[in-house]
Amino acid sequence: MIKTGFLTIISVVLTLANTVPVSASKRYNEPIKPIPADMKYDKQKVELGKKLFFDPRLSKSGWLSCNSCHNLAMGGDDNLPSSIGHQWQLGPINSPTVLNAKFNLAQFWDGRAKDLQEQAAGPIANPGEMASSHQLAVATLQSIPSYQSLFEQVYGVKKITINEVTDAIATFEETLVTPNSRFDQWLLGNEKAITQVEKEGYALFKVKGCVSCHNGVGVGGNTYQKFGLVKTYSKDEENLGRYNVTKQEADKYVFKVPLLRNIELTAPYFHDGSVWSLREAVNVMAEYQLGLKLSVPETEKIVAFLKTLTGKQPQIIYPVLPPETVKTPKPDRS
Amino acid sequence: MIKTGFLTIISVVLTLANTVPVSASKRYNEPIKPIPADMKYDKQKVELGKKLFFDPRLSKSGWLSCNSCHNLAMGGDDNLPSSIGHQWQLGPINSPTVLNAKFNLAQFWDGRAKDLQEQAAGPIANPGEMASSHQLAVATLQSIPSYQSLFEQVYGVKKITINEVTDAIATFEETLVTPNSRFDQWLLGNEKAITQVEKEGYALFKVKGCVSCHNGVGVGGNTYQKFGLVKTYSKDEENLGRYNVTKQEADKYVFKVPLLRNIELTAPYFHDGSVWSLREAVNVMAEYQLGLKLSVPETEKIVAFLKTLTGKQPQIIYPVLPPETVKTPKPDRS
Repeated sequence: MIKTGFLTIISVVLTLANTVPVSASKRYNEPIKPIPADMKYDKQKVELGKKLFFDPRLSKSGWLSCNSCHNLAMGGDDNLPSSIGHQWQLGPINSPTVLNAKFNLAQFWDGRAKDLQEQAAGPIANPGEMASSHQLAVATLQSIPSYQSLFEQVYGVKKITINEVTDAIATFEETLVTPNSRFDQWLLGNEKAITQVEKEGYALFKVKGCVSCHNGVGVGGNTYQKFGLVKTYSKDEENLGRYNVTKQEADKYVFKVPLLRNIELTAPYFHDGSVWSLREAVNVMAEYQLGLKLSVPETEKIVAFLKTLTGKQPQIIYPVLPPETVKTPKPDRS
Repeated sequence: MIKTGFLTIISVVLTLANTVPVSASKRYNEPIKPIPADMKYDKQKVELGKKLFFDPRLSKSGWLSCNSCHNLAMGGDDNLPSSIGHQWQLGPINSPTVLNAKFNLAQFWDGRAKDLQEQAAGPIANPGEMASSHQLAVATLQSIPSYQSLFEQVYGVKKITINEVTDAIATFEETLVTPNSRFDQWLLGNEKAITQVEKEGYALFKVKGCVSCHNGVGVGGNTYQKFGLVKTYSKDEENLGRYNVTKQEADKYVFKVPLLRNIELTAPYFHDGSVWSLREAVNVMAEYQLGLKLSVPETEKIVAFLKTLTGKQPQIIYPVLPPETVKTPKPDRS
C-alpha cells in the first residue's frame, strides 16, 4: 500500500509536471503585460483599410497619406519633432506612433478621440494636415470603381460614407501590434530572453516609479498625467494637453502617457519632440515627473531595459492602389 | 513498309508536336517585346537598395524618400502634374514612373542621366526636391550602425560613399519590372489573353504610327522625339527637354519618349502632366505627333489596347528601417 501509494504520488507529480503548461513560469504578476499574439481580424476589411492608410488621395494635395506621419517603416511615426502637413505646415505636436495604438485609452496626446476610428477622421479634414474634407475624401473613393466594389463587398454599401472609411482604417490599425519583444518573451517564461543588465534596468524602472504610469500591455497609454508633475516644464507652454478637451484648469499640460513599446524606434520624444536621446528622455522624466536624479549606470540600465520593448514589426505588403478615373477630383496642391 | 513508313511519319509528327516549344506560337516579330520574367539579382544588395529607396532620411527634412515621388503603390509615380519637393516646392516636370525604368535609354525626360544610378544621385541633392547633399546623406547613413554593417556586407566598405548608395538604389530599381501583362501573355502565345477589341486597338496603334516611337520592351523609352512634331505644342514652353543637355537648337522641346507600360496607372500624362484622361492623351499624340484625327471608336480601341499593358506590379514587403542614433544629423524642415 505504502509503496503503491508512493508510486501513485510520484505518478501524479510526474503527470502534473507533464501537463502543467509552460505558462506556469509566466510572469503573471508583473505590471507590464505581454502583447497578445493571436488576435483575429476581418481580412478583407483589413486589406481595404491598408489601401486607405497608404492612399494619398485622401488628402487635398493627393500626396499625404496616413502613412506620411505614421510611417510603418519607422516605428509608426515620422521621426520628426512635429509632422509636416499640407503646404509644408509644421504641426504643433509630435506624431504618436500608430503601432499598438489600440492599447491607448483614447487617441491623440489630449485624448480627444475616443478610439482609432474617431482619430482617423481627424487628420483627413485638418487644414494643417491632409487638408481635405470628409466629403471630398469620400467623393474621391466613390469615383474609383475598384474602391466602390471593395466597400460594397466589405460593408454592403453602394454609397460610401466617412464612417466606413475610418472604420476600415481603424481595423487595419488594430492589426499594427508588435508582439514577441524580448521583454514579452521574458514575461512569457523565457529566462534568457533578456540580459542581467536589462533585468536590473526593469527592476529600476519599477523601483524608481516609472512603472506607475508606464504599465499594462502598452507600457503606457492608459492614464493622463501632467508633464511637469514635480517640476514645472517650461520648454513648451503652447500645447495645453487635456485642457483642450475638458477646459479644466487642472488639466493644463496634462497629456496621455505615451506607450513605451518600440521606444527606440520613435525618437524624438515627448509631445513636443524636444529630445532625441533616449538617455536624456529618461533623465527628463526622472527629473520632472519623479523628482529624481538617476546615476549614469541607472540611466544606462533603464535604457537597456527600454530597448527590450522593441517587438516584431508588422510585415506589410505594400498595397497596389487602384487608379483614379476621369471623375476623380483632381489633386490640389495649393 | 508503307504502313511502317506511315506510322513512322505519324510518330515523328507527334514527337515534333510534343517537343515543339510553346514559343513556336510566340509573336517574335512584333515591334513590342515582352518583359523578361526571369531576371536575377543580388538579393542582399536589392534589400539594402529597398531600404534606401524608402528612407526619408536621405532628404534634408527627413521626410521625403525616393518613394515620395515614385510611389510603388501608384504605378511608380506620384499621380501629380509635377512633384512636391522640400518646403512644398512644385517641380517643373512630371515624375516619370520608376517601374520598368531600366528599359529607358537614359533617365529623366531630357535623358541627362545615363542610367538609374546616375539618376538616383540627382533628387537627393536637388534643392527643389530632397534638398540634401551627397555628403549629408552619406553622413546620415554612416551614423546608423545597421546601415554601416549592411554596406560592409554588400560592398565590403567601412566608409560609405554616394556611389554605393546610388548603386544599391539602382539595383533595387532594376527589380521593379512588371511582367505578365495581358499583352505580354498574348505576345507569348496565349491567344485569349486579349480581346478582339484590344487586338484591333493594337492593330490601329501600329497602322496609325504610334508604334514608331512606342516599341520595344518598354513600349517607348528608347528614342528622343520632339513634342509637337507636326504641330507646335504651346501649352508648355518652359521645359526645353533635350536642349538642356545638348544646347542644340534642334533639341528644343525634344523629350525621351515615355514608356507606355502600366500607362493606365500613371496619369496625369506628358512631361507637363497636363492631361488626366488616357483618351485625351491618345488624341493629343495623334494630333501633335502624327497629324491625325482619330475617330471615337479608334481612340477607344487604342485605349483598350493600352490598358492591356498593365503588368504584375512588384510585390514589395515594406521595409523596416533601422533607427537613427544620437550621432545622426537631425532632420531640417526649414
